[in-house]
Amino acid sequence: MLSDIDICRTAPLQSIQAIAEKAGLQPSEYQSQGRHKAKVSLQSVKRLQHAQTGKLVVITAITPTPLGEGKTVTTIALAQGMQKLSRSVMACIRQPSMGPIFGVKGGAAGGGYSQVAPMDQLNLHLTGDIHAVTAAHNLAAAAIDARLYHEERLGYADFEHRSGLKALRIDNQQVTWKRVMDHNDRALRMITVGQNESGKTINGFERHDGFDISAASELMAILALAQDLQDLRKRIGQIVVAYTLDGEPVTTEDLQVAGAMTVCMKDAIEPTLMQTLEGVPTLIHSGPFANIAHGNSSIIADNIATKLADYTITEGGFGSDMGFEKACNIKAQVSGKSPDCAVIVATLRGLKANSGLYDLRPGQAIPDTLIQPDSQALIAGFTNLKWHIDNVNQYGIPAVVAINRFPQDTDEEIQQLIELIHALPNKVDVALSEGFAKGGQGTLDLAQKVIAQCESSAISTFTPLYKLTDTLEDKLSAVAIKGYGASRINLSEQAQQQLLRLTEQGFANLAVCLAKTPLSITTDSQVKGAPKDFIVDIRELKLCAGAGFIYALCGNVMTMPGLPEKPAFMSLDIDENGEIVGLS
Amino acid sequence: MLSDIDICRTAPLQSIQAIAEKAGLQPSEYQSQGRHKAKVSLQSVKRLQHAQTGKLVVITAITPTPLGEGKTVTTIALAQGMQKLSRSVMACIRQPSMGPIFGVKGGAAGGGYSQVAPMDQLNLHLTGDIHAVTAAHNLAAAAIDARLYHEERLGYADFEHRSGLKALRIDNQQVTWKRVMDHNDRALRMITVGQNESGKTINGFERHDGFDISAASELMAILALAQDLQDLRKRIGQIVVAYTLDGEPVTTEDLQVAGAMTVCMKDAIEPTLMQTLEGVPTLIHSGPFANIAHGNSSIIADNIATKLADYTITEGGFGSDMGFEKACNIKAQVSGKSPDCAVIVATLRGLKANSGLYDLRPGQAIPDTLIQPDSQALIAGFTNLKWHIDNVNQYGIPAVVAINRFPQDTDEEIQQLIELIHALPNKVDVALSEGFAKGGQGTLDLAQKVIAQCESSAISTFTPLYKLTDTLEDKLSAVAIKGYGASRINLSEQAQQQLLRLTEQGFANLAVCLAKTPLSITTDSQVKGAPKDFIVDIRELKLCAGAGFIYALCGNVMTMPGLPEKPAFMSLDIDENGEIVGLS
Repeated sequence: MLSDIDICRTAPLQSIQAIAEKAGLQPSEYQSQGRHKAKVSLQSVKRLQHAQTGKLVVITAITPTPLGEGKTVTTIALAQGMQKLSRSVMACIRQPSMGPIFGVKGGAAGGGYSQVAPMDQLNLHLTGDIHAVTAAHNLAAAAIDARLYHEERLGYADFEHRSGLKALRIDNQQVTWKRVMDHNDRALRMITVGQNESGKTINGFERHDGFDISAASELMAILALAQDLQDLRKRIGQIVVAYTLDGEPVTTEDLQVAGAMTVCMKDAIEPTLMQTLEGVPTLIHSGPFANIAHGNSSIIADNIATKLADYTITEGGFGSDMGFEKACNIKAQVSGKSPDCAVIVATLRGLKANSGLYDLRPGQAIPDTLIQPDSQALIAGFTNLKWHIDNVNQYGIPAVVAINRFPQDTDEEIQQLIELIHALPNKVDVALSEGFAKGGQGTLDLAQKVIAQCESSAISTFTPLYKLTDTLEDKLSAVAIKGYGASRINLSEQAQQQLLRLTEQGFANLAVCLAKTPLSITTDSQVKGAPKDFIVDIRELKLCAGAGFIYALCGNVMTMPGLPEKPAFMSLDIDENGEIVGLS
Repeated sequence: MLSDIDICRTAPLQSIQAIAEKAGLQPSEYQSQGRHKAKVSLQSVKRLQHAQTGKLVVITAITPTPLGEGKTVTTIALAQGMQKLSRSVMACIRQPSMGPIFGVKGGAAGGGYSQVAPMDQLNLHLTGDIHAVTAAHNLAAAAIDARLYHEERLGYADFEHRSGLKALRIDNQQVTWKRVMDHNDRALRMITVGQNESGKTINGFERHDGFDISAASELMAILALAQDLQDLRKRIGQIVVAYTLDGEPVTTEDLQVAGAMTVCMKDAIEPTLMQTLEGVPTLIHSGPFANIAHGNSSIIADNIATKLADYTITEGGFGSDMGFEKACNIKAQVSGKSPDCAVIVATLRGLKANSGLYDLRPGQAIPDTLIQPDSQALIAGFTNLKWHIDNVNQYGIPAVVAINRFPQDTDEEIQQLIELIHALPNKVDVALSEGFAKGGQGTLDLAQKVIAQCESSAISTFTPLYKLTDTLEDKLSAVAIKGYGASRINLSEQAQQQLLRLTEQGFANLAVCLAKTPLSITTDSQVKGAPKDFIVDIRELKLCAGAGFIYALCGNVMTMPGLPEKPAFMSLDIDENGEIVGLS
């Protein structure tokens, strides 16, 4: 089989005008960005506000291995399959971060014959949205350090006299807004800024700081949750970036930088239209993490797609305990639009990894034995799939299992998995997903089953796990107990104090976002399968007042990846014709 | 008069397709980026390689005040004036950096009725070239720190065994490649990276580092000097980023990151086509500083424009001792295309500031008295204009003086200046430049005089100040003595050692780029007018092997600006219609 970039390069792509027309956009509602990308105006949603809203299908997965189970490829393949069944369909995916592309995993455009194309344009820069997030984020960081510097240098009274501004009296030990960069740059995790040569203070005041990767910016979560430009402006102004010496929150509005940040992100609010290899119109928009943020592509993209198409296929990061939980409890509670059907992607490899019979460690290669047939491991790991089916169903959402088939998977083992699923008490549909090798043709059965579930779910029975009006502690417990199956949460002393302070300061009505390992349903990446009676330890709470949630750190969550010994960038280059080589 | 953004917003702009067609581009030679921008393919130059090359006019200035003398407005106004005279004309300008836009000076799109439009798109992100430079630059920085980390963590032998790569043995005290960001962020000038919590070394090895603003990246200079994508690739691979423990240069090629950096900048190599308010096709490309780099827009943009148009108007940063000197000695020696005429922009305010009769300090407001008529100060400051005319002429290039008129300038004082110019022994043309208030109509006289000079200079008499084969010391002396009028250079001990080492390592054939204050012809910003018999102290030499020059630090040159007490971003916002307000 050809490499991803070679498949993509030789595919006969349509002009973006043709794709936009096919999607139902009017010429005034999009602006082409070269031949194969377009920015889509939010005017399209306004025009279609009275049109019927299409079905929303969310692709989720079993508890994944670090290699992933193939959600993006299934998302694109399913959309292509639906198109082959003559349905009106669009896909909505997140924008890939460049850090991991240069670091370890290569591109994130799907793969094989189920890709968004051109994949190099999707993976590199796209239409600049992540750069805009980075720029707006770091503008606020520069504003904070400049204010600290001038207020401390001049003294508060002199500062006020000279600038005509009110001194903010920011506590330089309580700046919560770090800087961001779209690279895997380990050395920037913990830094000291504002250093000076002996005795001078011309470079600001020295303090500890650090960089996160841009996808971890609260602005990325805000971009994914905003309803329109004015809502973006409002949310940006609500971001708390620091605390004063009196412990009061300091917002970007206080710094008078929220307007400029919004200006910086004015184009980023428009989703980017592209196409799959089979010409399905696809919107790419935002890319929040699925641990410290909600891990789903944007509400704006969904709003456009569900008005234009009968079926919108999108995905949430990691397993159904992660991105899908947040799609239901965070995203749907903001958008008012809940998923009509969930597709749970499972692989033989991933289920066997969930058996607990293999020694798997994050950052290490998956053992070869895992791709050998192993009936016992499959049965043991199957408990994990069953858990995810039950989890999806508890939200009142029907589930279809998609078995993402790899070339080395045997017919016997696939058949064994299908029989295990058929034997479940709650009748659940299952279909193969062979989109990587066959494109939409490889998901016709899956597409039919998803359509059937969507058509049968005319009356929404959607039930989120909590109401926003519940207390913060109740909301955290709801996710841990109902969402993960834990027995209870355990707040550290620090988290308890933070919970009190956040409640006092009026943030109790926000959603909660648990940041934990995706490699287990529990907070311990070594615990596989479908564990019970575990405790969710919450170390620290972090406020994202602009995004509208408080995230809870359960264990260590890495917000700035590092480069491995032999990074992926080493194989990237241009050839003698100026074409990109080495991107996969 | 309306504000810049209001003039721009109410101007009837043409579609970018119409502008491209007017410029003579074929539909396959550009890709629209929205309605008013397009990326121009280098295929256009190939198609036109046998066409006649048009005239190249470089706009330069007297020794400027920190407010600038209006070179960009004159560049655009002159292009508009030529168009009114029915000449085939294009303008080529640099992409504005966002740092200063948010910091102090607002936009950099010209002003009044001589702007590149839409000015908000020019000033913010444009087509992402600066972001691409930033990303490529910081990828190399992450690669360096990751390599340091893995080699030191594992030991060289184990590193080589595990990775299959040869250990580079980079000296962590001799990393010369900093990081960059397109913001005015003082606190990032001096930082410490790779810090760890007690005892661990998971975040890399601690070392001193810092950020420059993105325009100061060597990649920006490379982008401006590259001839095509393959040349860009070659130059990127030649960048020296560090030295080994044995003192040998380490390049991006050694790090195997040069290919990925080029991939990152693949779209950035195409200039962006826009239009002036009067519809003159304008190419925007690159934005190198005019002190530590050569301060002119790109060779590629010039190559395209001079093949498409009879007249190409471009500008070099600061006065003729700075950007224009580097246009002649660095840029023209690479491109093979020397300027056919130079326009020296002068203002009454700027000439009086050059009298030495006012107390002007960098970073402080210009005194009100400077805009009052002052015949004595004008005569004293006029020596500076005379110096710049002689300077331009010594390159064999004819000069025309453009008096950029401000509303408060009196007729009497303007007349006095014109008479001073007419009284010069070498007959030099002078014309008013009233493009800010009148657009192209305000530069008809100037345009006619520039055209006359270009037509009379059929045979090039261009003479750069040095040959690349001269020794480094001779090249530095040539710029200081012939280019500035100094009596000699004085190399610090450090610079002498660096000069020896650079010569030994085979870099003696590079061009030289003197980095000094733009506010004086000397290296002391307080010395005004046309000083003589001064010494140029050179503190340090820095290698830009990819860009192809060695820059010499003469005094302090700021490569990361700071934000003032009340930054420009405070007035930026979106209004209820989602339009940008507060950008000027």
